[in-house]
Amino acid sequence: MTRRRHAPWTVLDSREVFSAPPYISVQTQRVRLPDGRQVHDFHRIVMPDYALVFPELPDGRLIVLRQYKHGVGDVSLTFPAGTLDPGEDPLAAAKRELKEETGYEAASWRYYGRYVTHANAFSNAAHLYTAAGCRKAAEPDSGDLEEMELLLMTRPELFEAARRGEFKLTSQIGMLALATHPVLAETMGREA
Amino acid sequence: MTRRRHAPWTVLDSREVFSAPPYISVQTQRVRLPDGRQVHDFHRIVMPDYALVFPELPDGRLIVLRQYKHGVGDVSLTFPAGTLDPGEDPLAAAKRELKEETGYEAASWRYYGRYVTHANAFSNAAHLYTAAGCRKAAEPDSGDLEEMELLLMTRPELFEAARRGEFKLTSQIGMLALATHPVLAETMGREA
Repeated sequence: MTRRRHAPWTVLDSREVFSAPPYISVQTQRVRLPDGRQVHDFHRIVMPDYALVFPELPDGRLIVLRQYKHGVGDVSLTFPAGTLDPGEDPLAAAKRELKEETGYEAASWRYYGRYVTHANAFSNAAHLYTAAGCRKAAEPDSGDLEEMELLLMTRPELFEAARRGEFKLTSQIGMLALATHPVLAETMGREA
Repeated sequence: MTRRRHAPWTVLDSREVFSAPPYISVQTQRVRLPDGRQVHDFHRIVMPDYALVFPELPDGRLIVLRQYKHGVGDVSLTFPAGTLDPGEDPLAAAKRELKEETGYEAASWRYYGRYVTHANAFSNAAHLYTAAGCRKAAEPDSGDLEEMELLLMTRPELFEAARRGEFKLTSQIGMLALATHPVLAETMGREA
């Protein structure tokens, strides 16, 4: 008897233990592993997916925000990002968040894929984009709770800020490394 | 009257709405923003921090795992990683997870910092390490639920796998980009 390698787990049942729509749902699953074992309390967290944008100006500078993020409990540099509205296309959300948070619009977009936040519990997924040829089209109007400081930084300035520990979020430091990577930035992105 | 820029939010009270120790705690906070506004239902999720390791062999190949991850609902490439035991030092956890999941030990370690997973809800934090001079010291014995396939891959092979979308987790694609980045890999890491 053979068994497919890395077969998915089977969810035998799922029970919602906390819900605060549209922000968060926590489920407790009973799952069956490929070897037949059952796990009775595997937790799944579902929060809305989000789009994250690495926005470049025609002169090569990047648009960066400095803001207090309550998840971090501290001030962090971030690139523009925000959750998808229900049913919203990830690229539409990326364009909307860039415009709302910075007032800029981009001439072209590239998509680097969808990445899940938590290996076991899901949490949410990030859609990663780069936006080139950004030009100011309006005043920022994010409607977010945070006061945002908009900065225009060169790549060397961003690398130095990263060295100083000014990026404090996994997805943000990953976005910086990916979008400025000599191989991955070229090979992984596709026109969006 | 002046106000400190990017002042932290004040947590007025916090109420645990779901708890399954040691895996997860969900809290609903009432917070006061710097401008005086109050938010009554700001959710905070706390799961254990984890260590993530980019492990290199003396010949330059990297140790990679292929496994089904239930958070993704799919098979993904990952670097060795795992949650810190209560009170465990992040570097000790990194060494333990590398040994348990792969059987390898490293000659030297570099630390790239602690990064929070979710900008608003926290979720958990990742401690990022690179491990050089890895040599096999034992058979893997992770005790994890997943069946893990151990691969030894060159950097070009990893970049090609990333291009094909075989990395499906935010922290994992970020770790790859960071640890192979010509500037950040050098400037951000410090001896651990």
